[in-house]
Amino acid sequence: MLMSKNIVITISREFGSGGRYIGEMVAKDLNIPFYDKAIIEMASDKTGFSPEYIKENEQKLTGASLFNFAITGSYAGNMVFGNGESLQDTMFFAQSNVIKEVASKHSCVIVGRCANHILEGMDNCINIFIYSDMENKIKRAVEEYKLDSANIEKILKERDKLRAKHYNYYTGKNWGDARNYHACLNSDFIGIDNTIELIEKIAKSKL
Amino acid sequence: MLMSKNIVITISREFGSGGRYIGEMVAKDLNIPFYDKAIIEMASDKTGFSPEYIKENEQKLTGASLFNFAITGSYAGNMVFGNGESLQDTMFFAQSNVIKEVASKHSCVIVGRCANHILEGMDNCINIFIYSDMENKIKRAVEEYKLDSANIEKILKERDKLRAKHYNYYTGKNWGDARNYHACLNSDFIGIDNTIELIEKIAKSKL
Repeated sequence: MLMSKNIVITISREFGSGGRYIGEMVAKDLNIPFYDKAIIEMASDKTGFSPEYIKENEQKLTGASLFNFAITGSYAGNMVFGNGESLQDTMFFAQSNVIKEVASKHSCVIVGRCANHILEGMDNCINIFIYSDMENKIKRAVEEYKLDSANIEKILKERDKLRAKHYNYYTGKNWGDARNYHACLNSDFIGIDNTIELIEKIAKSKL
Repeated sequence: MLMSKNIVITISREFGSGGRYIGEMVAKDLNIPFYDKAIIEMASDKTGFSPEYIKENEQKLTGASLFNFAITGSYAGNMVFGNGESLQDTMFFAQSNVIKEVASKHSCVIVGRCANHILEGMDNCINIFIYSDMENKIKRAVEEYKLDSANIEKILKERDKLRAKHYNYYTGKNWGDARNYHACLNSDFIGIDNTIELIEKIAKSKL
């Protein structure tokens, strides 16, 4: 596909909503790079933390980090490495810099990591939120992610609670509020294939 | 168009987002009835209040109504006329009954009035939220609705605040949280015509 200008599609998603797969398919169809774990690896190079450590800790806000936030105000949009920042802040800022770097270079799809907020103001940025009903998320988590079905609803809610906490903390906005995105789609009600098609339709209208 | 089964499209919208127009166009294209002010007129027949009185007061929650809520708990899903209900409650319940009545009879588009919540559980119900950026909402309010441009941003914010308060009060959910709807679309970013097309695409996939 011939791109007349760069577009960046960011995908925020509930755990188990199929958002990651949807992002991958959109990237494949539009023939543009897809970033998910790659961002962690690129941030790893910048911070010296191992990719495993970043993956494990990026959404765990510690007391130190919250205290840091309380005395310095919002970090939203602040990409400067400063004194006294927590490990989580360092990882967030490193990932933010990677996101800004790849988005400035070429069209791409970026999943998660507050990319919609980090790239705020870019006029070629399409921000999508993908969510689903609990019933379908449980089914997907058990069948595709092979999670243990015992307490699965509690586990899914906890994962989304961590995502929400991380997002709200670094952006000062509410995760899942429609107005933070250009389109929000219930992937199971609309259907995965249809959801992919709708996102591509929006993307193509911006080319 | 041949409808194989009834579908009901509910449209919640920010003031000035073009949501009403979008709903009208979808109804026209799908050749199904469109309900907005008609609901007020039908509720007027049931309550004895004039349509003008309902229109003027339906989203103004009084102290009495809030007190009533505080002592009786959430009204969400409770369609029973009870003792001690406020005028706003009576109007809400009358409109709710009208919405349930029309939705059970035929396919239609219903704009506003917490219809997504009132019809919760209907599997042929497609719930849409339409919103836009302040800049475009101001333009639309001044050009199309002929509102005075002085203090227009404040006026628009107040109108949406009333809508949010009304919705949150009667549903116990947050107005604008993506997960209350099947699709949320920024009408100006996506474009009015494209937004209409996306909604029709979702509707047709459900027929």
